[in-house]
Amino acid sequence: MDIKKKSDKDKEIPVQDFTTCDATQQMITKGRLDGVDTAFDRAANMKACPIGADSACCKHCFMGPCRLNAKDPYGKVGVCGATIDTIMARNFARMVASGAAAHTDHGMSMLDLFREVVNGKIKDYSIKDTQKLEAVAQSIGIETEGRSAKEIAVELYEALESTYTAVEGEIPFAKRVPPKTLETWRKHGVVPRGAMREIMEIMHRTHMGVDQDYTNITKQCSRTALADGWGGSMVATEISDILFGTPSPVSIEVNMGVLKEDQVNIIIHGHEPNLFESMIESVNEPTFIEAAKAAGAKGINLAGMCCSGAEVLVRHGIPHAGNFMSTEAVLITGAVDIMAVDVQCIKQGLVKVAECYGTPLITTNPRCRIEGATHIEFNDHEPKKSTDEIVIKAISRFKNRKAKVQIPQNVNIGVHGFSHEYINYMLGGSFRGSYRPLNDNIINGRIRGVAGVVGCTNPRVKQDHVHIELVKELIKNDVLVLQTGCSQIALAKAGLTTPEAAHLAGPGLREVCETVGMPPVLGLGSCVDNSRILIAASEMVRIGGLGDSIADLPVAGCAPEYMSEKAISIGHYFVASGVYTVFGVTFPIVQGTRFHKHLFEELETMGFGKWGFAIEPQEIARLMINHIDKKRQALGLDKGRERVLVDMQDRRAIDAA
Amino acid sequence: MDIKKKSDKDKEIPVQDFTTCDATQQMITKGRLDGVDTAFDRAANMKACPIGADSACCKHCFMGPCRLNAKDPYGKVGVCGATIDTIMARNFARMVASGAAAHTDHGMSMLDLFREVVNGKIKDYSIKDTQKLEAVAQSIGIETEGRSAKEIAVELYEALESTYTAVEGEIPFAKRVPPKTLETWRKHGVVPRGAMREIMEIMHRTHMGVDQDYTNITKQCSRTALADGWGGSMVATEISDILFGTPSPVSIEVNMGVLKEDQVNIIIHGHEPNLFESMIESVNEPTFIEAAKAAGAKGINLAGMCCSGAEVLVRHGIPHAGNFMSTEAVLITGAVDIMAVDVQCIKQGLVKVAECYGTPLITTNPRCRIEGATHIEFNDHEPKKSTDEIVIKAISRFKNRKAKVQIPQNVNIGVHGFSHEYINYMLGGSFRGSYRPLNDNIINGRIRGVAGVVGCTNPRVKQDHVHIELVKELIKNDVLVLQTGCSQIALAKAGLTTPEAAHLAGPGLREVCETVGMPPVLGLGSCVDNSRILIAASEMVRIGGLGDSIADLPVAGCAPEYMSEKAISIGHYFVASGVYTVFGVTFPIVQGTRFHKHLFEELETMGFGKWGFAIEPQEIARLMINHIDKKRQALGLDKGRERVLVDMQDRRAIDAA
Repeated sequence: MDIKKKSDKDKEIPVQDFTTCDATQQMITKGRLDGVDTAFDRAANMKACPIGADSACCKHCFMGPCRLNAKDPYGKVGVCGATIDTIMARNFARMVASGAAAHTDHGMSMLDLFREVVNGKIKDYSIKDTQKLEAVAQSIGIETEGRSAKEIAVELYEALESTYTAVEGEIPFAKRVPPKTLETWRKHGVVPRGAMREIMEIMHRTHMGVDQDYTNITKQCSRTALADGWGGSMVATEISDILFGTPSPVSIEVNMGVLKEDQVNIIIHGHEPNLFESMIESVNEPTFIEAAKAAGAKGINLAGMCCSGAEVLVRHGIPHAGNFMSTEAVLITGAVDIMAVDVQCIKQGLVKVAECYGTPLITTNPRCRIEGATHIEFNDHEPKKSTDEIVIKAISRFKNRKAKVQIPQNVNIGVHGFSHEYINYMLGGSFRGSYRPLNDNIINGRIRGVAGVVGCTNPRVKQDHVHIELVKELIKNDVLVLQTGCSQIALAKAGLTTPEAAHLAGPGLREVCETVGMPPVLGLGSCVDNSRILIAASEMVRIGGLGDSIADLPVAGCAPEYMSEKAISIGHYFVASGVYTVFGVTFPIVQGTRFHKHLFEELETMGFGKWGFAIEPQEIARLMINHIDKKRQALGLDKGRERVLVDMQDRRAIDAA
Repeated sequence: MDIKKKSDKDKEIPVQDFTTCDATQQMITKGRLDGVDTAFDRAANMKACPIGADSACCKHCFMGPCRLNAKDPYGKVGVCGATIDTIMARNFARMVASGAAAHTDHGMSMLDLFREVVNGKIKDYSIKDTQKLEAVAQSIGIETEGRSAKEIAVELYEALESTYTAVEGEIPFAKRVPPKTLETWRKHGVVPRGAMREIMEIMHRTHMGVDQDYTNITKQCSRTALADGWGGSMVATEISDILFGTPSPVSIEVNMGVLKEDQVNIIIHGHEPNLFESMIESVNEPTFIEAAKAAGAKGINLAGMCCSGAEVLVRHGIPHAGNFMSTEAVLITGAVDIMAVDVQCIKQGLVKVAECYGTPLITTNPRCRIEGATHIEFNDHEPKKSTDEIVIKAISRFKNRKAKVQIPQNVNIGVHGFSHEYINYMLGGSFRGSYRPLNDNIINGRIRGVAGVVGCTNPRVKQDHVHIELVKELIKNDVLVLQTGCSQIALAKAGLTTPEAAHLAGPGLREVCETVGMPPVLGLGSCVDNSRILIAASEMVRIGGLGDSIADLPVAGCAPEYMSEKAISIGHYFVASGVYTVFGVTFPIVQGTRFHKHLFEELETMGFGKWGFAIEPQEIARLMINHIDKKRQALGLDKGRERVLVDMQDRRAIDAA
């Protein structure tokens, strides 16, 4: 499908066209003066391959690579005879496999850590949230009454391991799925076994000469994606909560202004909480604070970026310097004394930018090395060994700072950390904590429905713009918005994640927000925490009044600026769970083909959700709201609501906010 | 790299340019008259994407797909900043992952079957080769003395399961690896854990923003490929031998002339032995033979194709109708009354050809459905249910044959079935079975070295041609050739797999062959049976006199007409095991890059083997023989041997053979 193209020739595109983030604009401008280019520039100068963008090419064997024609998709087949549907489905399946593998591998790391903490081999971390431990254990039928945390933890570990390793059966968290949704999965044979088996099977099926029926390939995509959402990702989230604490709302600072010129600035960027948690310990060591002072700094300033940032933001209130498309820009400030990364979404381009400003770029995970970066391996068995070394390097760089420092003075405040548990509490209080009030407010129409707006930023569309405009449109129409990952940082920078943003919401949603004192846009965590949205949806089904399955709920999801294969896996696990899920930017399938119809229409008739696609925020909002209204209607909740457009007056009100 | 291009315009390329296989030529000609096209024609009309063929494009995220320039590989990076080395290594890694997954999933199916046979839930199969069961058990340290086959089998099953599921440690068959080779693996951190974890981790590492150091990615490729060769594939081979019998040499018929106009012809094509084994039972049912006769046939004629065929060929002497590039051609005979397939290398194009001739095409495996084919699921718990139904359909098609039948009268004889155990026996006899005579003959120079010539056929080069000319050149130079998969069928059709072919060998090899009564070209089984070559190599090291590791041996491998990702995984496990491995057709990496240098040079200096590439058989032979001579020299075995070229007189002798 169409990729929004920027001019292929003109490198000097106005920075306002690249991003709505003022701080990032400033830094792109500075970078240009310094002779540094970023992914924005590279995207402007890289014409996306139109055939690849449609998944209309296949390089799964060496008789090709074969290229089919999106304009005449059935006019030609590959050398082996593979049709456009086979080829697109194969490509799509490998995207799901890679995305699911990223979350699975992350989840396995968390579970490995959990095991070592439980068996006492790791002492630097401990079980922080025993209430969560018990709740998770109970959710899969483990007895908790009268047992020690350790006993429960041992049994929980053993049960959860099969999430990854089981070669048959059903993953443990299938027990959390609403019965009617699970029934649909069983009917179509998509209940996942262990995630590793599903990923491996996709890689087999997409080999030359194996699965050549796009509906059968789609089933395996569903099974694998569900092994991510209800498996790999969910285990990662739950274990992280157990070990590091379940988030509850906290007011935090976001944007590049969180950097301090007179302090040692350390940025952690990536996806795993353990590196960051250990870094928090290291930067608080009095000896290091002294050393920093001795080097002329007022202290050590730790900030997050991307999803690592999103996790600690909600657990510790650590400031957040920006989302995916700002990671190069932040280095251009010259103020970053070190950037340490773990896995996923780490641009290789960071190496060059870091080099230009004399900022050490540190890789820490054996799975993710980058040519030109310094590798200081992080080991859960002695976590501080690595993070201490990183702090020392940062202090040294501060002392020898050569780069001119220019920090954008943008700082915004957001309230984040709405775990599904907290939503429960928030709506009902500790005495009668429940999703009942949420369901009631949906039923009585104050809240029209719930939308998940999540995902990356992508230089093929103006950074943050689609996220912000889409969310404004949704809340204006009384749709409560749940957020994760880079999307929530976009909204935080736009000031929409505070309770005060309720004035931008429609009257019904505003009333609810004002009563409860919550923002109309709830940040839930990192992208792996999309599993929290699945649990929230299940809870809405369980409470009742909104249908029997997730597919019945007046909800919709969207990743309007996605860029990663993880997003495809997440999108597909929402679809397979019953959610209408709209993606922006581009969709890697030729419109008008049978595979397209299968994903965008037929899956819904089978009891799943379905995919949607639009680029412009207004159009995405229209699709999502129409779907929510359709579901309301099916539930008999259609009170003839009108969709409200954000007008100029509203925009002024937002700008003034 | 260069892909041999055929004219893009002229569809009517002379059939002699497509293939050296006379029967296939006849059938392409017939197909053209019948209006049927094959993969040969499609390849001629499909220009391979030059950027994709070099792996110089990346569609692992949606900021792209990015295309780099093979002519100026370091002139540009991807949108994320990924260099040509990162991009090529990522692409290469996913090929390894898919190939390894294919073998792993196959191996897991075999192991599932083994478990069910051992625990008595499946009674249609049984343990056929208890000697092999004991040998395999002993090889990984399982006590066999005084224990029942069942006891041993239970323990073996439990041990082998970790080949797939272990999340840490080393796979069981690492115990079979020569100590010095294993030491190299440990040094570089590439000893595989369970195959599923390795595959999953590749899919994580190749996600956007994870591993961006081609040497680190290569390590994970090695670990994953080794999890295939010494894991997934080896378990598949060993379990197949235990359940269905270890092959020993048998004289068999190959080529399309094995079809019988007056019989019900059934073709089995794919990769798993169980479907075929069950089909052998079904076609021998007296009631079906009666039914066939009642339908006017003289009987039921069962033949194999591709690797399914290669497995039963050596276990039961079932005739083989042709290799990968002949599977469409065989349908054009009109004589095939049914073609049943399981997994891998099943061209989607078969559907249309089968339809033209009224031949039912039957898919049997849940992982491999094909649009337009009939699905009759094969279940190990009641195998004959499916194969009986297929036989009935075949008889019915015979009765109602409408297509004009034209069977090429080509039938060749080959002697195949040289399992590594048999080679042991063959060389030393049952009394002193050992690889000692082989080693001695290599040391004394009668045999210059050993070559594995394996792999697919590919319409981008003339079918069978490179296999045949390469092998002739090798044996002429006293190199003993081991073969698997489609390659051995090419040689069988050319008459080189009989003891009589010894006259084409150089004087030393001829003398050995004539003494032992063996062909100079030994067919070992299907492509999954390349693991037999690993074991043979390990045995050569163990016997002594040829160095301490596989990398020391005067051996080389080649897949001159490969087409699949499985071949890449196989190639890489040979390389990682220490073997110089030359591929033909095309190599998916830009020459002159650092990643190319890493695979083609640096790996060897690290103690592994290395990759090689050439298209023409003479050039491939030169590379392999030079390598063998280099290793002989390093071992002090260089007696100043001259390379012999096949001259016209030799060619005439071959043609007359």
